[in-house]
Amino acid sequence: MKRINSVATMAAIMKRKTRLILALDVISRAKALYLVQLLREYFDAIKIGYPLILSAGPWIVKDISCLAPVIADLKIADIPNTNKLICEAMLEKGALALIAHAFPGFDSLQACADCVRSYEAELFVVTQMSHPGAELFMAPLFQELTRLALEVDAAGVVAPATKPDRIKFIRSMIGSKTIISPGVGVQGGSPSAALAAGADYLIVGRSIIEADNPVSAVERLLSEIQ
Amino acid sequence: MKRINSVATMAAIMKRKTRLILALDVISRAKALYLVQLLREYFDAIKIGYPLILSAGPWIVKDISCLAPVIADLKIADIPNTNKLICEAMLEKGALALIAHAFPGFDSLQACADCVRSYEAELFVVTQMSHPGAELFMAPLFQELTRLALEVDAAGVVAPATKPDRIKFIRSMIGSKTIISPGVGVQGGSPSAALAAGADYLIVGRSIIEADNPVSAVERLLSEIQ
Repeated sequence: MKRINSVATMAAIMKRKTRLILALDVISRAKALYLVQLLREYFDAIKIGYPLILSAGPWIVKDISCLAPVIADLKIADIPNTNKLICEAMLEKGALALIAHAFPGFDSLQACADCVRSYEAELFVVTQMSHPGAELFMAPLFQELTRLALEVDAAGVVAPATKPDRIKFIRSMIGSKTIISPGVGVQGGSPSAALAAGADYLIVGRSIIEADNPVSAVERLLSEIQ
Repeated sequence: MKRINSVATMAAIMKRKTRLILALDVISRAKALYLVQLLREYFDAIKIGYPLILSAGPWIVKDISCLAPVIADLKIADIPNTNKLICEAMLEKGALALIAHAFPGFDSLQACADCVRSYEAELFVVTQMSHPGAELFMAPLFQELTRLALEVDAAGVVAPATKPDRIKFIRSMIGSKTIISPGVGVQGGSPSAALAAGADYLIVGRSIIEADNPVSAVERLLSEIQ
């Protein structure tokens, strides 16, 4: 099953123009659309999560996909068939990439990878998270989680900008696959350090969208990394 | 923040009348509403997941909550603040219970527990899943995942009916907290064995909703377990 009018995969669209992905961490439909229109020229993609989807409705993915490439950050973590249905629902609405967890295991992740591939879209796999709780179960498993991303031939992985050494290690494991890195800005990760360590894209949210002047904030960030 | 008109928690509503929870694994709004109206008298609660929510829209939770108690099975697995926003979105629409993963760690799970409590709703924590992939990372950690459910004082846990011994062990860990068990029917779990091992509620889906006569199917199941 292919998306009608599918013209390109995320890799083809995300040209490392600015190397920035906007984490659209708002729950208002109006604010979401305003921010995307205001900021889209500064970002290679827009990352949307469940808080917005559950407040504004899933069709927000369709609307924003008309304005910019969308990464649906759903941290998918269910059984294989449910994962497939979740992926389909988002890909049908125009998402060009999805983010899934690897901890539910190979078959669950494979279901995402297969579905995403059939839509010529891309899958990013969570290898590590930056909140303190992730140290308990996830951090000790980051190599195994990364290996699973390779096994299902995902487009890339998510690895936190707060840990450049970890990014460097993951880069050594995954070769030319894509690394997208949250944690820059409010969480304290250094943009230049994350990129130097091997991140392909930085995911930034609050430090831009909560700024008094979001355009100035993103222009400052761009001049810092370029 | 409390839900307006909140009259009772899930525990007060789910009276172990039939000890069955319907997994509403459909993606059509019309079919979902039809099945709930047809079957609600046979079930203590209706479990809704992302495939339906992403297809029919999040307001389906509101509509079904008018007909029966709703458990939103979102397998929540994000950072604390995102988890909180996801919980709020569902609780505001009337869900009386949520299902979250423990895998992302204490703070993420605590954010769900705190939010759910402020709405006088309930949290169930995934301790184990029944698909083959779960053997890789999750199965070896089931005791730690269960312990985390206790630490945040969740209402209960999800444990698969396909493994009665595991249910028995988890029952010994969690005392009088509630165990809800998927895996009966199509996945092969024995209803009586799961209940005898300590499950409080059986979650059944496909074996009922895909039956030629769903009412006969659920009546057969009820006569088997009562």
